[in-house]
Amino acid sequence: MDAKSNQNSNENNNRNSSRDSNSKPEGFIRVRGANEHNLQNVDLDVPRDALVVFTGVSGSGKSSLAFGTLYAEAQRRYLESVAPYARRLIQQAGTPQVESIEGLPPAVGLQQQRGVPQERSTVGSLTTISNVLRMLYARAGDYPEGQSVLYAEDFSPNTPQGACPECQGLGRVYDATEASMVPDPSLSIRQRAIASWPGAWHGQNLRDILISLGYDVDRPWKDLPQQDREWILFTDERPSVPVHPGLSHKEIEEAIAAGRRPDYMGNYMGARRLLLQTYASAEDAGRRRRLEPYLVVHSCPLCRGKRLKPEALSVTFAGFDIADLFRMPAASLKETLENAVMPERERQGGREAEKALIARRLVGDVTGRLERLTDIGIGHLSLDRPAPTLSSGELQRLRLASQLISKLFGVVYVLDEPSAGLHPADGEALLDALAALRDAGNSVFVVEHNVDVMREAEWLVDIGPEAGERGGRVLYSGPPQGLTDVAESVTKNYLFGPETGLLRERREADGWLTLTDVTFNNLNGLDTAFPLGCLTAVTGVSGSGKSSLVSHVLPALLAPHLGSLPAEPEEESDNAEPAEMTGRAGGDLASLRRMVRIDQKPIGRTPRSNLATYTGLFDHVRRLFADTPLARERGYKAGRFSFNVASGRCPVCEGQGFVQVELMFLSSLYVPCAECGGTRYNAETLEVTWNDRSIADILALNVEDAAEVFREQASIARTLSVLLDLGLGYLKLGQPATELSGGESQRIKLAAELQRMQRGRTLYLLDEPTNGLHPIDADRLLRHLDALVRAGHTVVMVEHDMRMAAQADWVIDLGPGAARQGGQIVAAGTPEEVAAVPESRSAAYLARYLVGVEISET
Amino acid sequence: MDAKSNQNSNENNNRNSSRDSNSKPEGFIRVRGANEHNLQNVDLDVPRDALVVFTGVSGSGKSSLAFGTLYAEAQRRYLESVAPYARRLIQQAGTPQVESIEGLPPAVGLQQQRGVPQERSTVGSLTTISNVLRMLYARAGDYPEGQSVLYAEDFSPNTPQGACPECQGLGRVYDATEASMVPDPSLSIRQRAIASWPGAWHGQNLRDILISLGYDVDRPWKDLPQQDREWILFTDERPSVPVHPGLSHKEIEEAIAAGRRPDYMGNYMGARRLLLQTYASAEDAGRRRRLEPYLVVHSCPLCRGKRLKPEALSVTFAGFDIADLFRMPAASLKETLENAVMPERERQGGREAEKALIARRLVGDVTGRLERLTDIGIGHLSLDRPAPTLSSGELQRLRLASQLISKLFGVVYVLDEPSAGLHPADGEALLDALAALRDAGNSVFVVEHNVDVMREAEWLVDIGPEAGERGGRVLYSGPPQGLTDVAESVTKNYLFGPETGLLRERREADGWLTLTDVTFNNLNGLDTAFPLGCLTAVTGVSGSGKSSLVSHVLPALLAPHLGSLPAEPEEESDNAEPAEMTGRAGGDLASLRRMVRIDQKPIGRTPRSNLATYTGLFDHVRRLFADTPLARERGYKAGRFSFNVASGRCPVCEGQGFVQVELMFLSSLYVPCAECGGTRYNAETLEVTWNDRSIADILALNVEDAAEVFREQASIARTLSVLLDLGLGYLKLGQPATELSGGESQRIKLAAELQRMQRGRTLYLLDEPTNGLHPIDADRLLRHLDALVRAGHTVVMVEHDMRMAAQADWVIDLGPGAARQGGQIVAAGTPEEVAAVPESRSAAYLARYLVGVEISET
Ligand SMILES: Nc1ncnc2c1ncn2[C@@H]1O[C@H](COP(=O)(O)OP(=O)(O)O)[C@@H](O)[C@H]1O
Ligand SMILES: Nc1ncnc2c1ncn2[C@@H]1O[C@H](COP(=O)(O)OP(=O)(O)O)[C@@H](O)[C@H]1O
Ligand SMILES: Nc1ncnc2c1ncn2[C@@H]1O[C@H](COP(=O)(O)OP(=O)(O)O)[C@@H](O)[C@H]1O
Ligand SMILES: Nc1ncnc2c1ncn2[C@@H]1O[C@H](COP(=O)(O)OP(=O)(O)O)[C@@H](O)[C@H]1O
Ligand SMILES: [Zn+2]
Ligand SMILES: [Zn+2]
Ligand SMILES: [Zn+2]
Ligand SMILES: [Zn+2]
Repeated sequence: MDAKSNQNSNENNNRNSSRDSNSKPEGFIRVRGANEHNLQNVDLDVPRDALVVFTGVSGSGKSSLAFGTLYAEAQRRYLESVAPYARRLIQQAGTPQVESIEGLPPAVGLQQQRGVPQERSTVGSLTTISNVLRMLYARAGDYPEGQSVLYAEDFSPNTPQGACPECQGLGRVYDATEASMVPDPSLSIRQRAIASWPGAWHGQNLRDILISLGYDVDRPWKDLPQQDREWILFTDERPSVPVHPGLSHKEIEEAIAAGRRPDYMGNYMGARRLLLQTYASAEDAGRRRRLEPYLVVHSCPLCRGKRLKPEALSVTFAGFDIADLFRMPAASLKETLENAVMPERERQGGREAEKALIARRLVGDVTGRLERLTDIGIGHLSLDRPAPTLSSGELQRLRLASQLISKLFGVVYVLDEPSAGLHPADGEALLDALAALRDAGNSVFVVEHNVDVMREAEWLVDIGPEAGERGGRVLYSGPPQGLTDVAESVTKNYLFGPETGLLRERREADGWLTLTDVTFNNLNGLDTAFPLGCLTAVTGVSGSGKSSLVSHVLPALLAPHLGSLPAEPEEESDNAEPAEMTGRAGGDLASLRRMVRIDQKPIGRTPRSNLATYTGLFDHVRRLFADTPLARERGYKAGRFSFNVASGRCPVCEGQGFVQVELMFLSSLYVPCAECGGTRYNAETLEVTWNDRSIADILALNVEDAAEVFREQASIARTLSVLLDLGLGYLKLGQPATELSGGESQRIKLAAELQRMQRGRTLYLLDEPTNGLHPIDADRLLRHLDALVRAGHTVVMVEHDMRMAAQADWVIDLGPGAARQGGQIVAAGTPEEVAAVPESRSAAYLARYLVGVEISET
Repeated sequence: MDAKSNQNSNENNNRNSSRDSNSKPEGFIRVRGANEHNLQNVDLDVPRDALVVFTGVSGSGKSSLAFGTLYAEAQRRYLESVAPYARRLIQQAGTPQVESIEGLPPAVGLQQQRGVPQERSTVGSLTTISNVLRMLYARAGDYPEGQSVLYAEDFSPNTPQGACPECQGLGRVYDATEASMVPDPSLSIRQRAIASWPGAWHGQNLRDILISLGYDVDRPWKDLPQQDREWILFTDERPSVPVHPGLSHKEIEEAIAAGRRPDYMGNYMGARRLLLQTYASAEDAGRRRRLEPYLVVHSCPLCRGKRLKPEALSVTFAGFDIADLFRMPAASLKETLENAVMPERERQGGREAEKALIARRLVGDVTGRLERLTDIGIGHLSLDRPAPTLSSGELQRLRLASQLISKLFGVVYVLDEPSAGLHPADGEALLDALAALRDAGNSVFVVEHNVDVMREAEWLVDIGPEAGERGGRVLYSGPPQGLTDVAESVTKNYLFGPETGLLRERREADGWLTLTDVTFNNLNGLDTAFPLGCLTAVTGVSGSGKSSLVSHVLPALLAPHLGSLPAEPEEESDNAEPAEMTGRAGGDLASLRRMVRIDQKPIGRTPRSNLATYTGLFDHVRRLFADTPLARERGYKAGRFSFNVASGRCPVCEGQGFVQVELMFLSSLYVPCAECGGTRYNAETLEVTWNDRSIADILALNVEDAAEVFREQASIARTLSVLLDLGLGYLKLGQPATELSGGESQRIKLAAELQRMQRGRTLYLLDEPTNGLHPIDADRLLRHLDALVRAGHTVVMVEHDMRMAAQADWVIDLGPGAARQGGQIVAAGTPEEVAAVPESRSAAYLARYLVGVEISET
């Protein structure tokens, strides 16, 4: 992102010039006595109306200062002023630990999303572009002759007015075919040929009814007459039939002739009808998921998956229906709309001129907004893209783009690693966006690990020197160049240090895993190969297809060969059409035993999962507690020390430690449970101590302190030392899953893997493992990945940090652009080879870390 | 409030100097194309970080610009940014009509409260001083030997922990005595001697039971034996008695002897017990109010009205229990606390030293806050004062004081006539407070009519030239002195014009109304007299006792003589102890026929009352509609055109025109009813038109336009012309009562009075009638008051505007200070006489308007 040294530099880059002329930092925000979390009575002056970057190793206290102190206090003050009656609630949730802050304007926080996104929103709804487009179609669309003009709501599949009447706006319909219900026609009905049938008694009942009706349930399905098969699966009749369980058809006929009473009368329903009915009425997603293998999903025949009623789809603009526009990447949509505006029509007068005028206004509004999206490196997203499928970096940049439209003045924006998930080629655009916010009269405070962002800062606050208790001090606060003289700072080594030097030697592949003819999202007939026994980095601009390849295609195509399903079922929003995937895996597959996806998804969906439970160390800890004299005397078993078990936990919050307060205008607030004081346990359980600590005290320890406490408990200590090494020393053992960032979740998963590394040859898949990591922590991570490879495993990681990619054995660069302009292999080879490919947008950035490197091979 | 010319000027007044050195206005807020309400596409640049005053006649558009445009847009932008999902709700409530605003920071609005205050809060809770004081008592109070230390909640009467167990924290208990239940002992029981008994059947039943029991219900109560009277009123027995309605005791005895079956068995309950039980279980306030005359209220014997449990009251600080402190005026409380801090104790070490240290910290916090209150002219308020008993000016200044503590930076404060209710002697303090807000780094925008505030502005925006459609333009925007050259501005005449000149001649009293030995609130044995047939102004600093005298004592003492109760029952908060009032009215009382209080209370408590219904003009309008051909054809009577009648109104909003949306963090939002589009009527009713206007169209007219429309309807036109003359031309006929300011409500009441002026000799009582009025509108009001006096009536008004007081026939100046330092007559006489009394804090300000006045008398 160095503007001078790279060919992609934005031509009208005037970040610094405009700052110099208009907005010299003048006033300061003066913080005195900040003690939030690990901060050590911090005094700090930071300039307003400037781009300020907060640096330091993970857990040093950057967020505690920028978010926990500055942002939280600014929010509190403003909300108290505009809604004083909300004061009590806010104060209950905690006022930051700080003596005084002077000169602090109201703040807007753009945090990385933590936990599971709850909303059903899409890119279009979050940016409000959806509404404007619907207005455009309603007021300025081309209507078929004679069709009456519609309202904006008629163009929304989420309104009764707009939804397709066939699929209720879902875009898809479910059906069942002979092939889907009877996957193995060599089986007989008794052998469960009709796989979609329910199990247990209900399935036997259906079989017995068929016996009564005279069907042969012991012949292979494929040998039954066509008309029998038809009737059994597709009949709409619902005959009521005497059932004699266990008898053959013949015996039943005899029984009937003998006038013997049947056990009961059974009702038959065709298999297809039964399946669809069960599916439609299934209340929980799990049940529906179990039925899905027996169903075929079709695009809705009426709307062809476009979710709108025919009248709405008949209206066009620039020749497209509105659903077409929602599916275009933002960048293409912008072009399409711009080309569609015809100012000359406005001069003709009459209805057409009026429509042209409205169109120009609305299109102007939409393209203005779309431009912000493309500017900031998310032009590959389409408007119908569900928010839960976005990466947290994409979501943050989406909110950043909205801020550029909102014209706030005089506020403090606080951002959390906005470069996460961004290719260096897109970094320029991000820096421009940050500068634009500042030039509009705001202060921009950024917590960042990316050295290119640090270099652009007008002011740098370096926290450290280490994490947790050994951090929390301000090592430096001033213009970036001043950091050179600060002995304690580890940041300065990366900011000013040489960009060269490899940590270890390159390896050769000891086999290849090949993918052929892959089609998924924007990947279209792609062929590629991954070296086994190596560390591979997959690079490319945002939206080029990296995640599609590494997180979706690889697991899906390899799973059948490794005899395991992908670890977690795909999260698909209800609205998303299931994406179609084709392709074949091949090569030296036989040498792989396992595949492990170490992704950024939460380690659990509720606050009941946490670091300690996920890594398994909590089991050991609970056993230690159950072994104490008091626990034995009282008969407390290990289960008693779980906050998920009724006997031991606080009865008020049921072991959650907090209670939820719903607030309309803020995300709901969690306030500590008054009964247990947030400890999660009941008083009796807390009376049991191990080395003077209650079970709640243990959960409140951070990893670093815990490592000291459990020094002598070998298995616990091993887990903790890996966590420490991955830069997670600052996390509390009881830190709930919902409070972890994507990067933290990923590193916890990695730690859990590292401690059971011995098992069979494994393929590890990682998605941007350096998110949230200071370069020094990234180096540490790299050593761990290296250890995995040295142990014979294979690691494939999506990575934007070219310092990391430069250290890989192999690089696969996707591109050349995003969305439809991407999806191809631009280059594949050693980092040096890729750095030499002129078409690759990664090449130049990669080259910066390879200058003068002498390549040595094992 | 002219700093140079008055003896009360604040010595370390550095409002302008500090501004000049630190905070020169630099940037501007640029408004383009503002069209909210009557604004005429206004373009305007106003400086940030400055004190900006918006001026103009009532209805010219000051609020539409300052609140409706700048404040509303700033709020919207910020809330959209911090809570984007609230966007839809906010937009539904209306985005201001403005093309663009650049450079607009987040805003905080300090509006005058409109409508009825809903909250149960007090001065102490609003300022959060209550909490700190409770902490002080808990942690640093003096506890009796052996009593355990309490928590802060134990010192709150609103918590179960703290409330007095006898009165449940109410501070008062109810009882019934013979005198209270039997007000006229010359009556017999049959004549309803026991006035507290229920009426109708239940009362007869009790009487019949007493007959059965052998009591004499036909003898005067006073002649019944003592023990009978005791039993009937106070027995705790509940005998079950045969009842033979209509028979005498003798006849009943015979009936019993003859074995005749009684009609029924009745249960007797002592009158006292029955009354207390009914009162305690009465659900509605109206029912309770009807029973109150028969009850005696006592201070609770356990807590002596202090509402706290004995343990809490046993803890003292500086020798006072906490309830004592809550009852002190803020200014005295501050002194008391300051004197109580003993730093020398801190040096002794041990528990005492720790307490002393805590005390110093907490006292420092409290006195800092109290100082803001006294600074700003509300040092006379005690912490236990319920918010609903504060004037809107006091409430606004209370919020202003809280803002000074809150340390916001970089926001725009928008205030609505903060000088309302403030004596000129306190004006300095207000200007200091506004300057302090600005010097803390904020922009301060004030809508004001007070010329002293205008003079202090760094920037003045004059809107006009007239109200409504004839206003809405920016006549001037710049430093105040520049306004001299603006021909159209009426403001300049008052800002720069001579301060002398009387509108009319002085009158002599044609009789006197005397008050003797008045005690109420801070009035203590006061004697005074009001000239009849004159206009009297009652002056004095805030809290000196003006309202107590004019709005409470006068109505209460005169009511019995004029045979009427005070117009509205006193609004007392549940918490307030009923204040005791003593005093006698005398003098030429006989010549008065009526008394009318024209106060600032709402003209109605729901949006169903409005200007048109209150003044009675709506009755005439509805008759016009019922008389149209279509209405006659359909049989619509006048009632059909009331939005309070089911047949005519919109069924969805039931004639409200809007529906309510509850929002946790903002006041609830009212959004227009989608069914009727906010018109309040159903479609059939709206089909009826009179002169092409529907009934909803009429309600949407403002007074000014309506005057034109009803030119030929004499009785309607008369009402409208009075409203116009009182500066209310901008109000819509359908403007709901809940949307009117106190000043507007008062002027509507005055208009209603003026149109029925002919009736008997009347005493009019007004409370600050110039609130919200531009000086030119105040002059117009004065002419109307003068007309009342010329017609033989008497007018007494509380007034802070010395321009008004100077024009009165008589001035009564209360003081010399506030609360306990006030409550006395400092001077009474003609304005000239009062202006010459050195002890009067009003004298100097009054004199400014009397310089060179030649006094002529009628
Ligand atoms: N909610 C919390 N409660 C208590 N401690 C916390 C909380 N969040 C962070 N910490 C602790 O504060 C320290 C700094 O963390 P943080 O500010 O998140 O660091 P950074 O942003 O530099 O990664 C760590 O020791 C961490 O464990
Ligand atoms: N869940 C999804 N639904 C629809 N389109 C998607 C989804 N995930 C990715 N895409 C699209 O596929 C293309 C490649 O995206 P992705 O694999 O996420 O790229 P990268 O990981 O390189 O940023 C982009 O155009 C993106 O918008
Ligand atoms: N809520 C409203 N809806 C419609 N018109 C309004 C509303 N409030 C005020 N107006 C109109 O706007 C004009 C200016 O009023 P306002 O801004 O309150 O004046 P000022 O503050 O100068 O007294 C008046 O004609 C008034 O009737
Ligand atoms: N409802 C009330 N309850 C308790 N005290 C009151 C009440 N109203 C006024 N007071 C007190 O009586 C004194 C005189 O107040 P007030 O008559 O309102 O003065 P003014 O009208 O001159 O501002 C002040 O000390 C005030 O705090
Ligand atoms: Zn459909
Ligand atoms: Zn709990
Ligand atoms: Zn009591
Ligand atoms: Zn309605």
